[in-house]
Amino acid sequence: MDEQKINAIVNEVMNKVGNQPETKPKHHQADTSKEVALTEFVGTAEGDTIGLVIANVDQALLEAMDLERSYRSIGIIGGRTGAGPQIMAADEAVKATNTEIVTIELARDTKGGAGHGSLIVFGADDVSDARRAVEVALEELDRTFGDVYGNEAGHLEFQYTARASLACEKAFGAPVGKAFGLIVGAPAAIGVMLADTAVKAANVNVVSYSSPAKGTSFSNEVILAVSGDSGAVRQSVIAARDVGLQLLGALGEEPVSTTIPYI
Amino acid sequence: MDEQKINAIVNEVMNKVGNQPETKPKHHQADTSKEVALTEFVGTAEGDTIGLVIANVDQALLEAMDLERSYRSIGIIGGRTGAGPQIMAADEAVKATNTEIVTIELARDTKGGAGHGSLIVFGADDVSDARRAVEVALEELDRTFGDVYGNEAGHLEFQYTARASLACEKAFGAPVGKAFGLIVGAPAAIGVMLADTAVKAANVNVVSYSSPAKGTSFSNEVILAVSGDSGAVRQSVIAARDVGLQLLGALGEEPVSTTIPYI
Amino acid sequence: MDEQKINAIVNEVMNKVGNQPETKPKHHQADTSKEVALTEFVGTAEGDTIGLVIANVDQALLEAMDLERSYRSIGIIGGRTGAGPQIMAADEAVKATNTEIVTIELARDTKGGAGHGSLIVFGADDVSDARRAVEVALEELDRTFGDVYGNEAGHLEFQYTARASLACEKAFGAPVGKAFGLIVGAPAAIGVMLADTAVKAANVNVVSYSSPAKGTSFSNEVILAVSGDSGAVRQSVIAARDVGLQLLGALGEEPVSTTIPYI
Repeated sequence: MDEQKINAIVNEVMNKVGNQPETKPKHHQADTSKEVALTEFVGTAEGDTIGLVIANVDQALLEAMDLERSYRSIGIIGGRTGAGPQIMAADEAVKATNTEIVTIELARDTKGGAGHGSLIVFGADDVSDARRAVEVALEELDRTFGDVYGNEAGHLEFQYTARASLACEKAFGAPVGKAFGLIVGAPAAIGVMLADTAVKAANVNVVSYSSPAKGTSFSNEVILAVSGDSGAVRQSVIAARDVGLQLLGALGEEPVSTTIPYI
Repeated sequence: MDEQKINAIVNEVMNKVGNQPETKPKHHQADTSKEVALTEFVGTAEGDTIGLVIANVDQALLEAMDLERSYRSIGIIGGRTGAGPQIMAADEAVKATNTEIVTIELARDTKGGAGHGSLIVFGADDVSDARRAVEVALEELDRTFGDVYGNEAGHLEFQYTARASLACEKAFGAPVGKAFGLIVGAPAAIGVMLADTAVKAANVNVVSYSSPAKGTSFSNEVILAVSGDSGAVRQSVIAARDVGLQLLGALGEEPVSTTIPYI
Repeated sequence: MDEQKINAIVNEVMNKVGNQPETKPKHHQADTSKEVALTEFVGTAEGDTIGLVIANVDQALLEAMDLERSYRSIGIIGGRTGAGPQIMAADEAVKATNTEIVTIELARDTKGGAGHGSLIVFGADDVSDARRAVEVALEELDRTFGDVYGNEAGHLEFQYTARASLACEKAFGAPVGKAFGLIVGAPAAIGVMLADTAVKAANVNVVSYSSPAKGTSFSNEVILAVSGDSGAVRQSVIAARDVGLQLLGALGEEPVSTTIPYI
């Protein structure tokens, strides 16, 4: 085969490689079937997220972790890509189980993308509660990645819940029991615009505003958290999403959902 | 086609993929023609940079952004790759327009590279001033990416201006109105060497020295900012560039300019 | 050649690209032969690490670096991928030479991976000591990358020394002269589990515990440093390694060593 044909193929492949959306939206079902012979292993899910449970945490580790209080058992979920999706999933998990949110830590990650990875720890007195929280969170992730959109230039994230719980409170200071929305744009310039759009679109309260130098782990995002009446929050999030898809699309290919949009 | 030929092609492509400079120097003209039906959209440029303008910023957003003072209109530029290029471009933009630099924030980004992304906000009382600042900055980016050099192992950046303005002052503490130069090496070990080279090459003043743990957003860079007589600053930057190209070249392919060198 | 065949090739290549371990374990021998005509250049090694030496550091640079004390000569090693391997290599280098550890700084890097890059500076009164420290460190890196394991989802790192020296003390607060071990899991959720495994496996003292929000540069890792009797430290590290390989393997391909395991 001659040089020219090889070059043609090489170019075609290079184009495909260059145009891959960075969040690589391969649909990942929560997978608890993979053979891992450790009782601590619960499963895996979207965003290279792993779920684990420790029945009796070692006392020396608990001290080193410097937690506010001690728990006999802990559940752990953490992934390379995504903080919002895991936080929203954890929020459902604490609603559904007898657990508390111990820590939420955000790494600067997303595997070369513009955002965060996450580490979330649930505390419980009973290991079955901790395990159940991890299971619920892993199951929820498929949904909460639904309004995460990516292309080769960046990503957008939108979240909505009619009733925020302890994970949203811990991570963003959201008022518990009220409707809550999350609006994220990356690169951060897009996020500033989305934040303006969101607060103009409906009568919502700004819960927090985070940017590369304040409130994020130096991620290239602006993150707006809003609270209020459920209709207003939803309207605010949807208006921002409409604008975000246009702006991120101006920097690259049409942004695509990681799973299936839910808002 | 037999297995062997396919493997030959695959290997050739894999080599190319492995050897791609991480800053992907595809020459990107400032692009204001892309069809985005939002009046706020100004354009895009090198480094996945987007330019936006908001005529009447929402009061709730302004409060959440916690700015030093309020502005009626803001201009926004921000990208995934590059802080120096955008800061130097913004410096020209404030010289040319009736605007102020509101914030400069540096994300840890460059899409898996060693450096920063950026978010820069211009403030103005009149939307046409804010828009003009964004336009000027986007146009300048093609030039200010000229002495950004990359290969698969890291990058180098050099900037020079005969007269620093408010963006260089805000970002680095540069004396306004004097010649100013920027010397960046990544991985940071190269940057230490470039800093030593720069201060030995000419009689310049050190304005700031930033490293992974101090003054950067944990980027893998050493960033030296120098000030002084224009001839001395230029000589200092050029001497560092000569050494940098050799050292980064020792870790990988010959480093290439992202656009066209201007110093 | 028809479309179908090209697509077959493209798919094959895309699979290979998608499945590449992110730490790209190409075995890199310490390379001091590459032609760089600068006396300051010492060599390169694994992890895009470069080694440099400056005989007479410029006084203005020393002041800008804000060091605790001055040194006539400095040796520098720094890379894009890896902090633990470089720190352990530097630890051997200070044992073997008349140098001190001046700074250890950790960038958030690994070229899109979950961990750190590093910048380590040795100080000496004599340039030959500084150069020798850099040479020793570069040579050691091939070994200290031996228990760094990666796949497309994350990485694991394990280190062990029978006698910790000044680099381990500076970086982790390790007791000098005692056996010392390092246990790292990324994503961080895996690291929590490894930390629990390590402290349960043997009677070791926790020297430090770092996580995305505390003690790391926002890396997606949990890093446990342990000290104690050499047998206990070794047992603790090996137990964590066994669990880590299973858990990281659950998120992707079987994790592979970057060079050759040494523990």
